[in-house]
Amino acid sequence: MATRRIDVGVLGATGPVGQRFVARLGRHPWFRVAWLAASRRSEGRRLPELAWHLPEPVPEDARDLVIDAATPGRGPRLVFSALDAATASTLEPAFAAAGHIVISNASSHRMDPLVPLLVPEVNADHLGLLAAQARDRGWSGAIVTNPNCSTVFLAMALGALRALEPRAVLVTTLQAVSGAGYPGVPSLDILGNVIPHIAGEEEKIESETRKILGVRRGDGVEFHPATISAQTTRVPVIDGHTEAISVRFEARPSLEDVARAFASFSGRPQELGLPSAPARPVVYMEQADRPQPRLDAGRDDGMTVSVGRLRACPVLDVKFIVLGHNTVRGAAGAAILNAELMLAERLLD
Amino acid sequence: MATRRIDVGVLGATGPVGQRFVARLGRHPWFRVAWLAASRRSEGRRLPELAWHLPEPVPEDARDLVIDAATPGRGPRLVFSALDAATASTLEPAFAAAGHIVISNASSHRMDPLVPLLVPEVNADHLGLLAAQARDRGWSGAIVTNPNCSTVFLAMALGALRALEPRAVLVTTLQAVSGAGYPGVPSLDILGNVIPHIAGEEEKIESETRKILGVRRGDGVEFHPATISAQTTRVPVIDGHTEAISVRFEARPSLEDVARAFASFSGRPQELGLPSAPARPVVYMEQADRPQPRLDAGRDDGMTVSVGRLRACPVLDVKFIVLGHNTVRGAAGAAILNAELMLAERLLD
Amino acid sequence: MATRRIDVGVLGATGPVGQRFVARLGRHPWFRVAWLAASRRSEGRRLPELAWHLPEPVPEDARDLVIDAATPGRGPRLVFSALDAATASTLEPAFAAAGHIVISNASSHRMDPLVPLLVPEVNADHLGLLAAQARDRGWSGAIVTNPNCSTVFLAMALGALRALEPRAVLVTTLQAVSGAGYPGVPSLDILGNVIPHIAGEEEKIESETRKILGVRRGDGVEFHPATISAQTTRVPVIDGHTEAISVRFEARPSLEDVARAFASFSGRPQELGLPSAPARPVVYMEQADRPQPRLDAGRDDGMTVSVGRLRACPVLDVKFIVLGHNTVRGAAGAAILNAELMLAERLLD
Amino acid sequence: MATRRIDVGVLGATGPVGQRFVARLGRHPWFRVAWLAASRRSEGRRLPELAWHLPEPVPEDARDLVIDAATPGRGPRLVFSALDAATASTLEPAFAAAGHIVISNASSHRMDPLVPLLVPEVNADHLGLLAAQARDRGWSGAIVTNPNCSTVFLAMALGALRALEPRAVLVTTLQAVSGAGYPGVPSLDILGNVIPHIAGEEEKIESETRKILGVRRGDGVEFHPATISAQTTRVPVIDGHTEAISVRFEARPSLEDVARAFASFSGRPQELGLPSAPARPVVYMEQADRPQPRLDAGRDDGMTVSVGRLRACPVLDVKFIVLGHNTVRGAAGAAILNAELMLAERLLD
Repeated sequence: MATRRIDVGVLGATGPVGQRFVARLGRHPWFRVAWLAASRRSEGRRLPELAWHLPEPVPEDARDLVIDAATPGRGPRLVFSALDAATASTLEPAFAAAGHIVISNASSHRMDPLVPLLVPEVNADHLGLLAAQARDRGWSGAIVTNPNCSTVFLAMALGALRALEPRAVLVTTLQAVSGAGYPGVPSLDILGNVIPHIAGEEEKIESETRKILGVRRGDGVEFHPATISAQTTRVPVIDGHTEAISVRFEARPSLEDVARAFASFSGRPQELGLPSAPARPVVYMEQADRPQPRLDAGRDDGMTVSVGRLRACPVLDVKFIVLGHNTVRGAAGAAILNAELMLAERLLD
Repeated sequence: MATRRIDVGVLGATGPVGQRFVARLGRHPWFRVAWLAASRRSEGRRLPELAWHLPEPVPEDARDLVIDAATPGRGPRLVFSALDAATASTLEPAFAAAGHIVISNASSHRMDPLVPLLVPEVNADHLGLLAAQARDRGWSGAIVTNPNCSTVFLAMALGALRALEPRAVLVTTLQAVSGAGYPGVPSLDILGNVIPHIAGEEEKIESETRKILGVRRGDGVEFHPATISAQTTRVPVIDGHTEAISVRFEARPSLEDVARAFASFSGRPQELGLPSAPARPVVYMEQADRPQPRLDAGRDDGMTVSVGRLRACPVLDVKFIVLGHNTVRGAAGAAILNAELMLAERLLD
Repeated sequence: MATRRIDVGVLGATGPVGQRFVARLGRHPWFRVAWLAASRRSEGRRLPELAWHLPEPVPEDARDLVIDAATPGRGPRLVFSALDAATASTLEPAFAAAGHIVISNASSHRMDPLVPLLVPEVNADHLGLLAAQARDRGWSGAIVTNPNCSTVFLAMALGALRALEPRAVLVTTLQAVSGAGYPGVPSLDILGNVIPHIAGEEEKIESETRKILGVRRGDGVEFHPATISAQTTRVPVIDGHTEAISVRFEARPSLEDVARAFASFSGRPQELGLPSAPARPVVYMEQADRPQPRLDAGRDDGMTVSVGRLRACPVLDVKFIVLGHNTVRGAAGAAILNAELMLAERLLD
Repeated sequence: MATRRIDVGVLGATGPVGQRFVARLGRHPWFRVAWLAASRRSEGRRLPELAWHLPEPVPEDARDLVIDAATPGRGPRLVFSALDAATASTLEPAFAAAGHIVISNASSHRMDPLVPLLVPEVNADHLGLLAAQARDRGWSGAIVTNPNCSTVFLAMALGALRALEPRAVLVTTLQAVSGAGYPGVPSLDILGNVIPHIAGEEEKIESETRKILGVRRGDGVEFHPATISAQTTRVPVIDGHTEAISVRFEARPSLEDVARAFASFSGRPQELGLPSAPARPVVYMEQADRPQPRLDAGRDDGMTVSVGRLRACPVLDVKFIVLGHNTVRGAAGAAILNAELMLAERLLD
């Protein structure tokens, strides 16, 4: 497959998630970043002239690209969007109408009933919504989204446990500052501190997770019946969101059942051998004090979700810790995996 | 009351909690630190010669005290204990047998059925256990304890809500490094990181809270019926534990009921006007992003518990954030308040 | 003196330095904050409605003040300016022309030959420039400035050593994030990191210090002959700038001479007993690992400069570490001390 | 060369530097880690059972090795030493006497006149001391050392400038916590703080640098005549030491001369194409705010020293910022490069 790399574009290429897109596409076997677009402020400039937040350098492919205006119809058919929600709400549909396949990390269209909200290991079949999307909107292109970063990790953990029928979920997140973009969280606010509030985050976790775990019926998705309650906090960590999760199931499973479900979890990306798919989407760590963001978020190039500390919960049924890399599996890596899935499923032909 | 300050001692005076004892007693209206004891390593030295971890200086009273051996019978009748649990388990009873009133921050005897585990605003009447303690153990002295730091803040929040009949509680903590003593957590482990495990902490929160909220009956305490489930994490914060809490009650209260219960909460220390008692033991903050450890842990000299972000919980009934100063209200300040209560209740006569 | 508190205003009251002004003036014996002005964005609002960055609350006096437009002629005669340099460059002269005494923390007019750049312990006599300033500019008011934060601490250390005739100075700074204002340094840039550049800072240190240590002659200041070379870095610290300093003198002094000069240093604020004047402007610490920002920056309410680690320098003559609180002695506290000096010297009559 | 990997051992394999040795040797083309030794506490255990501080996992080769006693004569001929100085002072000579080639990161023997203190790009010819070492000590093995971490980066920068004849050097370091080993610096001491003291570090920088830059004459090394003055501080950074350096030369060079010297710097490892040798040992960064530890310490797998901010120094001649990875180029990577050099120079035959 894909003997020649397909040209792709990045919308919003200058923020932390846009930069993660550029960095990962720069060494991607199937895709080649050929077009960058950003806000008017960056137009006409090149990435090496702007602030770059990653330890790895701007990749070869992207170094000389002049940043273009984000105008629908310009750039390749396949575009990755790291736009902010306000811009994405009108610009992504315009790109889809102009024939682009928009693989979006923005929140704007995630809850649109006709837009797939994908975690490929969990709900690859939600791509089936695209036919109805094209019909209903009259777009020659399409919009496909990945979830909010904290939601991805929760959805993968619950996806692994879906057969055990989760019914109620409490999650407290400890989120890294890279999730807030750039300049993002002022250092004066977060150094040696915790901020117990992230605007809109709890609502996203509580609603997006139920759509992801939902069942596709006809032209829509029937939401999963689990009730979810989230408390979100910001902590002084660069990359990696930690989540303390408790779950009640339809019937109380043994800890062995739960551990087995994590260990055996696999999905369509693993079947298809997608380039960004980790061998095991969820890795259970036995050590008492793991997973930790600084040591574990980068596992398998940031695409694996780490789970640990599984034990009985006296209030619900079981509790455990989940960790994922927020700008990789929680953003750019998630979107790229979505595009790989679509290519492998021949939805980009 | 207390026209002359009463001489007191500090056991384990050199660690972070011991230093908090010394610092606070150094400016206390009723107590005067007159005797310091610590491990053999520090014997014969003075505090200014050892590592001191607080921004405030070693107080006048304590500066010239030569650190003594921790031998029962030496030192004043009233001693504060910042001993580690292993040492406290045998040394505190020996002090009590030798006639000392041991006001202990150690975990060793908290769950002893005849030892009061006090949060004076919540269960001042548990001091009633002391009669049975004296009878049963044959001690001329006594042991009185304060809870684990994370437990204090949870117990105060739940104490405020006791009339609403809490039945199930989920708490995730984000704990400061000063809670781990000194040298405590290596910087290599915690800088820019989260450690999702604190040995023994979850068990303490789950059991101690139920004793504190329990009802004294005869010579014992009947534990509170609420079920409690804790997940504890360490974060790169110096002072101040943050807790994300969800509670289910016997009957679902309105948010107004809960807010009113926090606002009207008061206890015996406020009635008695104890010197360390804050005007309001629990302060509710209206701002969306508060409380925060760096800004709020020190409120009222560290003795107030701050609460914020009260909202409905889709899984249990309500959720909110609680914050307290772990080495003050969660340790040294808690113990000193216990001693003030005993003095005011004429239990030190 | 000052039986009634004098009404004062604060220009730029909403940033970190502006907030320090408000907080300190709120408990000042001579001044009463009666007027707040800020940018259009904050006009008409009150401080408690805006982001507040200090652990201490908005003081009583200031809580109900409605933020006014920064219009010359409005507000009290004495105004403290925490304006940014761009705004201050035109607005402060307009205030001075309208009759205000502007006590400024901004950099705009520091190097103006007729504007005193004060460190009251070092060059209180530079207030003598005000007569020429009034004559030359035709202002009924005046502008008086304090130095850049890093400069204050260096100037105080060198001020203490002035009689030893310093001739060459190398200084490397490790500066706290609160020095960069708010939102200031993005957390993504500084968490677990060092930024070896602060725009314009090295030039300020190299030039301002020589003016401060200079001798007033006629209507001007003859700069001090020492050559100064600065390297400035930003580190993940909230408050407190650390400086590693090496000095060559006209004749190599003994370490005892230098230590004695630090210990005996005192100035006009100490003579006059100004309310913000620390008993000793420079405190030498004997411990091998001090001063440290988290433990020592707040000494004497942040007004003392701490010095430590005095030893011979194999290249120049001596080297040592200096530490000061950048938003207090390096900004708001410095300006307030300037105003106190002017009041005591009857320059505000 | 080296068609089969040579078996090597690691002394002190469980600390942060020992772990770096194991991790890097696990993917080394010439060496294969076949023997681990550590203190009695770890004997008989395997690395995966102990605390592991690196994000990368314990390498395949090392996973099943049982940690042995550090007994001379056991283990392969070539051993890397990450021992602490006290242990190394007697144990390394015992290993050398028993026929081992000890490639040591410990400080104990660095200043021994017959022990090469190597930075292969700067003084590869100091290996010539080994003949005299064997003769004088009667060892069938040998000891070769790499410098203190901060010294390596300074020595490489000065090595690049050697032809310009540096005569006086002032350096202030901002050092990462991983340089202090494990548990190392308590988090309570360094979170949001600076510690302006690292025991023994300044002396090492001031003396070791002069040996490294010295000229080998007969059986010894004539020290370089430059005078060096160091001030060392610890900052809350995980990996990467930053150094602010000022240099006076025999004759003041232009900034272009200095820049050209950095750009053209290369040495024996580059000539020989050693596996750990970076293409360019010193990389000059043009951006005003670089190098930074979090972004730049890992460049070229941590083996490159980054330099930036070159400008004139008003006191000496030029000043600039240097950054290196302290546990790689400043420790384990440095030692491995030394071993590669010895192998390529046929000194291990």
